[in-house]
Amino acid sequence: MPDFPKGVFCAALTPLNADTSPDHSRLVEHCQRLLAEGCTGVALLGTTGEANSFSTRERMAMLEAVVGAGVDPTRLLPGTGVCALPETVELTAHARSLGVRTVIMLPPFYYKDITDDGLFAAYSQVIDSLADDGLQVILYHIPPISKIPLSVELVGRLRERFPHTIAGVKDSSGDFDNMAALTAAYPDLSIFAGADPLMLPLLKQGGAGCITATSNILAAPLRYIFDHHADGSAAAEVTRAQEHVGRIRALTARWPQMATIKAMLAHLHDQPGWNRLRPPLLPLTPAQRAEFEAAMAETEIRFA
Amino acid sequence: MPDFPKGVFCAALTPLNADTSPDHSRLVEHCQRLLAEGCTGVALLGTTGEANSFSTRERMAMLEAVVGAGVDPTRLLPGTGVCALPETVELTAHARSLGVRTVIMLPPFYYKDITDDGLFAAYSQVIDSLADDGLQVILYHIPPISKIPLSVELVGRLRERFPHTIAGVKDSSGDFDNMAALTAAYPDLSIFAGADPLMLPLLKQGGAGCITATSNILAAPLRYIFDHHADGSAAAEVTRAQEHVGRIRALTARWPQMATIKAMLAHLHDQPGWNRLRPPLLPLTPAQRAEFEAAMAETEIRFA
Repeated sequence: MPDFPKGVFCAALTPLNADTSPDHSRLVEHCQRLLAEGCTGVALLGTTGEANSFSTRERMAMLEAVVGAGVDPTRLLPGTGVCALPETVELTAHARSLGVRTVIMLPPFYYKDITDDGLFAAYSQVIDSLADDGLQVILYHIPPISKIPLSVELVGRLRERFPHTIAGVKDSSGDFDNMAALTAAYPDLSIFAGADPLMLPLLKQGGAGCITATSNILAAPLRYIFDHHADGSAAAEVTRAQEHVGRIRALTARWPQMATIKAMLAHLHDQPGWNRLRPPLLPLTPAQRAEFEAAMAETEIRFA
Repeated sequence: MPDFPKGVFCAALTPLNADTSPDHSRLVEHCQRLLAEGCTGVALLGTTGEANSFSTRERMAMLEAVVGAGVDPTRLLPGTGVCALPETVELTAHARSLGVRTVIMLPPFYYKDITDDGLFAAYSQVIDSLADDGLQVILYHIPPISKIPLSVELVGRLRERFPHTIAGVKDSSGDFDNMAALTAAYPDLSIFAGADPLMLPLLKQGGAGCITATSNILAAPLRYIFDHHADGSAAAEVTRAQEHVGRIRALTARWPQMATIKAMLAHLHDQPGWNRLRPPLLPLTPAQRAEFEAAMAETEIRFA
């Protein structure tokens, strides 16, 4: 059986300069910190990383900066799926050229009400064009944002057609039943929860871990849960970690999530630049900011 | 008052080669035919043109081919709005460098539930970056596909901030009340119906015309309606043209619209290559094809 990724992967946020260009040095520092804090790997250039707000060139330059700084490319799971298949091919081939083994691939997401046949054709055209036996693709199911669900049947068709390439699914539907159905249907694939609190129940059903936004600030407790979920003697500590994750995650949902987690990073590391987002996303408004500050005054984000 | 576009603009379909690359020579021929058939101009590289399925380079090459073949660039309204603002800037600047005056600009459409402030910031960042006094921008409101509605208030804020640049709105919501509200609120802007049957009622409220898919095959009756809508002596013929447009448009809605209009072009011009679409979009299925052929056997698409 191929060696598909498992573990706690951080959907890394992207630090920006004042002109909303990516801040490479801080991105490198963040990726290194995430690995040091316990992340199995870093899923940079995903939804949480504002990847779709960056140009093809900006995306490539970010990945080059991180790999160039010495981060092990086999621990990176960059997002490479965009609307235009030739650019998905280009981004994937570029990542592979840097030593990346596994990418997370959105379906083309502009046109809506796409059939499974259309999505099968799109993914097939990309994978056939790449003709790369060493490539692993994690399919990205995030209907609340992409509005393009990937059905359980579609995953099966793609897995059958590309058994060495289709490595798993990142399920950011928020629908635990769908994650459990994927895990039951394809036990050889790596099924990742896109929401932190769902990693533990999914691990119990054979899931592969998580790829999440909150791990930007909660890598340690998530890694503890991942490592000890089947260890009865650690049950109390796993429960405590899970409760902490649930509490902080609930807090991030009180305001726009990406702006909030960026504000938490700014707060934790005393780096106000983390508060920047590229339009159409915006930082917290002054009113949200005031509520956020009040909440921070009575919350310890770090798990201790 | 600035000279903003008015008339019948075709959201031109894109002919493809067998490998789904754009067929430049047939695209040039199609643009020339649309102008000869009565279109005021051609809105190429829009939703109907599969623009978001093409790479930045493919988009630029298509526009270069059409302008290079001698089509007047001031009669072209290319789409230039993509998810990443630097690429929206790049595509718009490229179109301007070829002599295009007016572009149709989608908002960034990956992230959902974006605030008006976020959309205002996105459009402002693009227009400020371009710093081009001669540029005209038609805002593109197509919530069924982009899932990013542009509110009447947002249009007003952008118009106030960029009075010489914001030229109008292409309203593909299908919601006539919204088009009428835009026309009433901003009578100096060019408000275009994105659905052919709505052009006539919108013209009566001060609208600027249409930018539509069905004009790929129905330029002549649409132009007749545009030219004669206020001419009482032509009322019967306008009604007949409007009924024809409504009938064919209803037919295109029986199957996936873009595949159907491509099939109609293949049928009308005996050019089977028109049936190709790039994934995730697909041609009509065999079952749809059989129904389509049966319908074509008893339908005259041309208005006579």
